[in-house]
Amino acid sequence: MSPLLDTIASPDDLKGLSLAELTALASELRERIIATCARNGGHLAPSLGVVELTLALHRVFSSPDDKIVWDVGHQAYAHKLLTGRRDQFHTLRTLNGISGFPKRAESPHDAFDVGHSSTSVSAALGFAVARDLDHRTNKVIAVIGDGSMTGGIAYEGLNHAGHLNKDLVVVLNDNEMSIAENVGALSNFLSRTITSEFVHKMKKDVETFLSGLDRVGNRVLKVAKRAEESLKGLFTPGMLFEAFGFEYIGPIDGHDIAMLTETFEKVKRFDDAVLIHVLTKKGKGYRPAEENPSLFHGVGPFEVDSGKVLKGKGGAASYTGVFGEALKKVAADDERVVAITAAMPDGTGLAGFAAAFPKRFFDVGIAEQHGVTFAAGLAAEGYRPVFAVYSSFLQRAFDQVFHDVCLQNLPVTFAIDRAGVVGSDGPTHHGVFDLSYLRSLPNLVLMAPKDENELQHMLKTALMYDGPCALRYPRGNGIGVSLDQVFSPLAIGRGEVLRRGGDGTILAVGSRVQPSLAAAELLENEGISLAVVNARFVKPLDRTLIVELARESGILVTVEENAVQGGFGSAVLELLEEEGIAGKRVLRLGYPDRFVEQGEQAELHAAYGLDTAGIVSRIKAFATV
Amino acid sequence: MSPLLDTIASPDDLKGLSLAELTALASELRERIIATCARNGGHLAPSLGVVELTLALHRVFSSPDDKIVWDVGHQAYAHKLLTGRRDQFHTLRTLNGISGFPKRAESPHDAFDVGHSSTSVSAALGFAVARDLDHRTNKVIAVIGDGSMTGGIAYEGLNHAGHLNKDLVVVLNDNEMSIAENVGALSNFLSRTITSEFVHKMKKDVETFLSGLDRVGNRVLKVAKRAEESLKGLFTPGMLFEAFGFEYIGPIDGHDIAMLTETFEKVKRFDDAVLIHVLTKKGKGYRPAEENPSLFHGVGPFEVDSGKVLKGKGGAASYTGVFGEALKKVAADDERVVAITAAMPDGTGLAGFAAAFPKRFFDVGIAEQHGVTFAAGLAAEGYRPVFAVYSSFLQRAFDQVFHDVCLQNLPVTFAIDRAGVVGSDGPTHHGVFDLSYLRSLPNLVLMAPKDENELQHMLKTALMYDGPCALRYPRGNGIGVSLDQVFSPLAIGRGEVLRRGGDGTILAVGSRVQPSLAAAELLENEGISLAVVNARFVKPLDRTLIVELARESGILVTVEENAVQGGFGSAVLELLEEEGIAGKRVLRLGYPDRFVEQGEQAELHAAYGLDTAGIVSRIKAFATV
Repeated sequence: MSPLLDTIASPDDLKGLSLAELTALASELRERIIATCARNGGHLAPSLGVVELTLALHRVFSSPDDKIVWDVGHQAYAHKLLTGRRDQFHTLRTLNGISGFPKRAESPHDAFDVGHSSTSVSAALGFAVARDLDHRTNKVIAVIGDGSMTGGIAYEGLNHAGHLNKDLVVVLNDNEMSIAENVGALSNFLSRTITSEFVHKMKKDVETFLSGLDRVGNRVLKVAKRAEESLKGLFTPGMLFEAFGFEYIGPIDGHDIAMLTETFEKVKRFDDAVLIHVLTKKGKGYRPAEENPSLFHGVGPFEVDSGKVLKGKGGAASYTGVFGEALKKVAADDERVVAITAAMPDGTGLAGFAAAFPKRFFDVGIAEQHGVTFAAGLAAEGYRPVFAVYSSFLQRAFDQVFHDVCLQNLPVTFAIDRAGVVGSDGPTHHGVFDLSYLRSLPNLVLMAPKDENELQHMLKTALMYDGPCALRYPRGNGIGVSLDQVFSPLAIGRGEVLRRGGDGTILAVGSRVQPSLAAAELLENEGISLAVVNARFVKPLDRTLIVELARESGILVTVEENAVQGGFGSAVLELLEEEGIAGKRVLRLGYPDRFVEQGEQAELHAAYGLDTAGIVSRIKAFATV
Repeated sequence: MSPLLDTIASPDDLKGLSLAELTALASELRERIIATCARNGGHLAPSLGVVELTLALHRVFSSPDDKIVWDVGHQAYAHKLLTGRRDQFHTLRTLNGISGFPKRAESPHDAFDVGHSSTSVSAALGFAVARDLDHRTNKVIAVIGDGSMTGGIAYEGLNHAGHLNKDLVVVLNDNEMSIAENVGALSNFLSRTITSEFVHKMKKDVETFLSGLDRVGNRVLKVAKRAEESLKGLFTPGMLFEAFGFEYIGPIDGHDIAMLTETFEKVKRFDDAVLIHVLTKKGKGYRPAEENPSLFHGVGPFEVDSGKVLKGKGGAASYTGVFGEALKKVAADDERVVAITAAMPDGTGLAGFAAAFPKRFFDVGIAEQHGVTFAAGLAAEGYRPVFAVYSSFLQRAFDQVFHDVCLQNLPVTFAIDRAGVVGSDGPTHHGVFDLSYLRSLPNLVLMAPKDENELQHMLKTALMYDGPCALRYPRGNGIGVSLDQVFSPLAIGRGEVLRRGGDGTILAVGSRVQPSLAAAELLENEGISLAVVNARFVKPLDRTLIVELARESGILVTVEENAVQGGFGSAVLELLEEEGIAGKRVLRLGYPDRFVEQGEQAELHAAYGLDTAGIVSRIKAFATV
């Protein structure tokens, strides 16, 4: 049902199409994207918003000689369909399937790997400088959303690009919205209705200037006042980019293929830095997504006709949801609690908090660095800020965690969601390094709950503690335990013995506690009797308990959803060394020293031997050597 | 010789002084700062530049109720002298002395700890939000340099602050220069001579507007053309900040106390976000520093009269210098080599490279994140970028190292200077976490040279390797070995046995190899015979060698200038676990799990038992248990 799309083997095949054919192709692309996302889930709304933009880019420019660098990359589905991956597109985001993001290993048309926000200008500038050093003439195009523009690295890139003034095209894909509602002064500036105090002030300046000229100036002033609309036109969003040294074009309609191709053709002849401001609609062409772009930003499987999102296997509440509710509850009793997100109020479960406590909720935009330091400022004044953030995005603010929080020992709580493998979003989004990179920082208390109920108590623990705390928990549903209504702080640095056993001990962390417990029960039947400890704290470790268990005879197994390099298991090895316990046979289970691919969470747990069956078989092999 | 300064116990004592007295006090402050820096070294030029600014701030505002947040903090010496630390000021930057940076633990007047750049707006916004939640009325003032404004987090903070429009004062301390020459479009924008294409373009827009009005407009145009200067005045640096939602005041003379106090008094009555653009001269009042602000930015001991910087103990070439020369040499033979710094061409030793290969050298401003992703773009196009950066500043770009370099396995080389303790700059600047935070990332090769000659070979190794490499080396002089003229790539993941011994092995990394060797020689005399291995690679480890040595009888000692949590020693423990080597007695030497204070490098090595004597005594204690 995609007669035109079926003829497109590479972007070259677009060159001969008529405008009518391109328009028809846009529909076919949308249909394919909607159908695939309905089955596999995916970043539907962003990809629907840039169908015409993608067609125009590939029509005018010549990938892969010309380099198209997609920011974040979740909008690149049409790009993938047009660059030789039509027949694999049904495997989008699945194990061994094609990635939901551009990936150099997948196609020469994917100039740069991506997944995190705001990197495109920097990378594209690298491409442009390389081209000039090579005396080549290809074009370099970064496509960046207005949401991504709030990230500091985008500004750093623009600043340097304006300084170098290379032949570089930045397409600003302005959909007035990143993932959630857009945040910040920049977005006011970009908005079409720039009727702000700023324009008022500038108008007054012009008037003062005119009235200072002479009598003629005064006469023109009267006319000028009647022409207020034209005067407003002077102060365009372009000013900002022109100030940075970019030539500015726009705003233009991002769904008008003719206008887009005409503009790109013109820009192709320029040889300095140009910013093209394009207006698009997220979810364009699929009504449910147009009406609820936030829900359809990154969505699970849904029913195409109704737009009804299909429920998962159902049952247990999600960790994210439990966190959000628990925070609301704690905040009701403790006015010091404030909450911060970096453009993820829904994803991090803070939307309810925001509604309940609007004055104590802060969406800082896609700006994790600022979010952490802003939290530190609040903490220095006696507040108890909770920064709710995905594990892999907190990497952006590693230095701020070090410099602004841990070094000052300030009571900021990091509620780290999406810790462990996240599923179809793949390696850019898996949160499998946080235990390693956070554990080396002094002062930080680092914990992980064994279930959604313990998450509540850990949140309380963190907020009662007078120093920095991080709690990390996985994407998806809890294990279905009942939720205590009263939250009790846990003893810092104390683990929990869940099971006794004579042949050794499993020390498990967070999401791996339950499978470890199940594994121990299965192993018992096979004659291997293991204690199971819910570590609760990765830092500080429960030294007394672990030393006591280690001194008993038998093996020691650590299980975590983190890289084995530098993770919880290493912390246990360090403890044994510090306590002078030699001769202990230890097995550390976690993710190996390579990037974990995309796939369902359960598939990945199984593939890496971190589900119950995997834990059983690896321990058996180890115990029986 | 400081009659006025001697009367100032707190900022309150400034309130009654006359303008003449304040001016005299400025001289006394300068004298004290110069004398102390001449003895202890320090950030002289930045602190001299803001003497009047500091006086005016403390005269008008009421610290500690009003919060003054210094960006970077290396300009806060006058602030320290005026806030109760005059009598300790001679201990500046020394072991157990007062810090060269604001520190909350030191004084209630130090609102926020700092040392890294560009955090002040974010922290100050946190203070302002906390104040409003508390219904307090104190003022919050961030003081940020134009150099710091190039850092992405500053932009993130401005964007959010403009959005919230809180009662907040940002003082932009514009000295047209951060540490080295300022970089980026932003600095063009800030410069007083904004006669750029941008103004030209805006002028044309105004003209078009006027001419479109009617005949009167055309007549005024003629007059307008004669008034070009006034028209230029319309397009001030303030526009940028006004666009962000700040009220803009300036530029004003930052050495005019009367003007400064008047402006601050006025601003005190405002209740929304204001940016005051202040022009200062780095090194003001001390001619050698005014003439060479880059040299006197952070300077060692010097002779006050001549401004002659006193040489250190002399002798060996510095690691930084050897790196810079080696890079120049390699680059002469390999056109793919390009070099990147984040505003540290001198500090990282790249100045010579910049002079020799100006087209292949890039100073990106204080923008480590962009620097790394820009490097990744260049590497994707076949170049071999070398990002030279201090260890603790690379923390800013941890996510970019992960997302843009390691995940794509791109051949970017990180030349990590100031790894280990750095001395008087203290905990914000010590580079004692890099082995921990980098070691967990797949694909990265991570090495440390035992001396300045090996650094050369490691640089060659990195540039020959088709993937990401990091080499880390300490601040200061090498050990004085002769420098090979031909650089030979080392075998990746192979250590070097420097010494054989029957009682065990010391595995040492980088700067700790030489003291470990010396320690082994002393221990030999005491009847403990140890092999010494120069590990060279922290990742990948020399598994074969380490396993072989571990299987031999005796103890295993690891020595590194890094935190013991997650560092090289932990990597060795992991290896033993993976190889199933139990029963080994291991001792890991490195920095413990707390932040290391300021002090001379040698003092800190001694304090933490990482010098020869410390290694000897700790091994003796361990071996004889």
